[in-house]
Amino acid sequence: MKLTKTVQKGGCAAKVAAHELRKILNDVQFPTPQSALKINGADFDDAAIYELNATQSLVKTIDFFTPIVDTPYLFGQIAAANAMSDVYAMGGTPILALAILAFPLQTFDKKVVVDVLQGAIDKLSEAQADLAGGHSIDDDTLKFGLSVTGLVENRNIWSNKNARNGDTLILTKGLGTGTLMAALKNDVLTEDELKDALMSMCQLNNILPWLSTEQRSAIHAATDVTGFGLAGHAYQMAKASNVTFEIHREAFMPLEHAMRTLSEGLLTKAHRTNREYTDGFVSIDQRLSKEDQLLFFDPQTSGGLLLSVAPEQAQSVCGALMPVFAKAAVIGNVTPFQKKHVVYDL
Amino acid sequence: MKLTKTVQKGGCAAKVAAHELRKILNDVQFPTPQSALKINGADFDDAAIYELNATQSLVKTIDFFTPIVDTPYLFGQIAAANAMSDVYAMGGTPILALAILAFPLQTFDKKVVVDVLQGAIDKLSEAQADLAGGHSIDDDTLKFGLSVTGLVENRNIWSNKNARNGDTLILTKGLGTGTLMAALKNDVLTEDELKDALMSMCQLNNILPWLSTEQRSAIHAATDVTGFGLAGHAYQMAKASNVTFEIHREAFMPLEHAMRTLSEGLLTKAHRTNREYTDGFVSIDQRLSKEDQLLFFDPQTSGGLLLSVAPEQAQSVCGALMPVFAKAAVIGNVTPFQKKHVVYDL
Repeated sequence: MKLTKTVQKGGCAAKVAAHELRKILNDVQFPTPQSALKINGADFDDAAIYELNATQSLVKTIDFFTPIVDTPYLFGQIAAANAMSDVYAMGGTPILALAILAFPLQTFDKKVVVDVLQGAIDKLSEAQADLAGGHSIDDDTLKFGLSVTGLVENRNIWSNKNARNGDTLILTKGLGTGTLMAALKNDVLTEDELKDALMSMCQLNNILPWLSTEQRSAIHAATDVTGFGLAGHAYQMAKASNVTFEIHREAFMPLEHAMRTLSEGLLTKAHRTNREYTDGFVSIDQRLSKEDQLLFFDPQTSGGLLLSVAPEQAQSVCGALMPVFAKAAVIGNVTPFQKKHVVYDL
Repeated sequence: MKLTKTVQKGGCAAKVAAHELRKILNDVQFPTPQSALKINGADFDDAAIYELNATQSLVKTIDFFTPIVDTPYLFGQIAAANAMSDVYAMGGTPILALAILAFPLQTFDKKVVVDVLQGAIDKLSEAQADLAGGHSIDDDTLKFGLSVTGLVENRNIWSNKNARNGDTLILTKGLGTGTLMAALKNDVLTEDELKDALMSMCQLNNILPWLSTEQRSAIHAATDVTGFGLAGHAYQMAKASNVTFEIHREAFMPLEHAMRTLSEGLLTKAHRTNREYTDGFVSIDQRLSKEDQLLFFDPQTSGGLLLSVAPEQAQSVCGALMPVFAKAAVIGNVTPFQKKHVVYDL
């Protein structure tokens, strides 16, 4: 059985698009939140931050999806790395997680479920966090994910609204998991051929241990690039910070085979909905090839962190990450707001 | 559209049975947990407890399911009350929650989703907790739930393993939501006729405000009665505490219409699997009617708290709860372990 064949709507492509969610949330009445709730993910995307005391806050996030790869153990690892990424994107450290598990009880090989859980547990263990429980239901298709709780020092919280004019933008991973997983599902590429993308998705965005105190404090803002693509997440961060991100195509790196699968039209629904989501807010240099444009909107699963860094420390931060994050790169810079929140050029 | 008609496997009946889950978890290798993880819900049922400091711990739990009622706002309220119940069952107080939302994006009326979220938010608000984000996916059937984080004072944690010989058992709500929601789904009873059960499921198990310090400290152990029924949860608690629970049918109260729908055979899969789960560990008085036996195994959604209370305070605790929890009752007592963990008699 190929796991990716068991689902219609695979992985990140199954995520409800931002503008659809907005339509719903606009009609919901939210009461005034508690004062301790410092960052409220009412947009259903970011981690929430709850201040526990004068020095420490809780970080809380949730993510789950259908299989995007065929090897169950890999799927568990990717789901865990992806869920924890939101905690790392706030500057936090995961401490525990609960599993969200749905699968067809009668027809599913138990070994598949065991392997998915083992993948997640091993990845949590690498992050020194525990799987402390969960909830499982009998459902038509396999879905798996985690609700992750982390801790963060109050003075080190990376909100996505603190990108500053003059900052340098760093992306820690390559791009292209959306098109590449579409290639896997359609039997155009095998898992063996997709090692670059699979290793990238399995990698924890745990950057703090590789940075000095000085380098850490040079990071003003961060987000993790997932379902809305580099375009969507750059837009959200630039908008929240009231600035413009200038992003240069020549500077960032696609994952192996991604340009080819994009040119072959191996796409997901999110390639279109991410473009619609950012329409009017993103300026695209029309000299960019069709593939380069699609890469910008490609939905990522367990994508990299997008960091907004003080310019004098940017090369040093990127250099410290590169031995571990092979495709970490300086991809652009932050300017005062100029008509569009994101400018994407050659 | 009737929400309950959109799903095959409704509510608690969709939960993966305990023995099925056990088969899976037995094959998973868990590393040694962090020392701060004081209660590890590795059995996938209880809330996890993580010690933050000398006085305070985090409580974390997750629950989600398919619609068990037709009114979306009611479904949201019940899902929220049910998810928070695990936090109350540990002696904790909820502080924030993340939503788990799945629905058929193309075909579903957005108003339904808005109402489900509003029900959850209003119930969280009643508990003085915030909905701080979530994750939503496009899926074949509506599912909704919450990952809830709470706080608890270390000295007031109600583990389910501290029931003591001589304690008195109190149940805060009536029983029968499993059979009654089967009756709703099968058009045997309407939501109007099911007010008693619906109000019970919507009610927060927030008992602390109604108890004095003395009454609170008389509670030695607690659990909330959900999918595994009174039989299953009493068994888990008695086993963890290495005691026997003697439970008397005459003492506890069914929800309105529940005895009738049980006698008419309006059952869920869990009526059978809960009996199988506890087989060999529970002694059933054979003079009990078929309906009385089924009520004992009836899977609850947002059921009551089962409290193990020092006998000298039991009447006082029950009396303090009764003005708010109309069906709160002393239902039995705790004895040294005697062959079976639960004895159920007339």
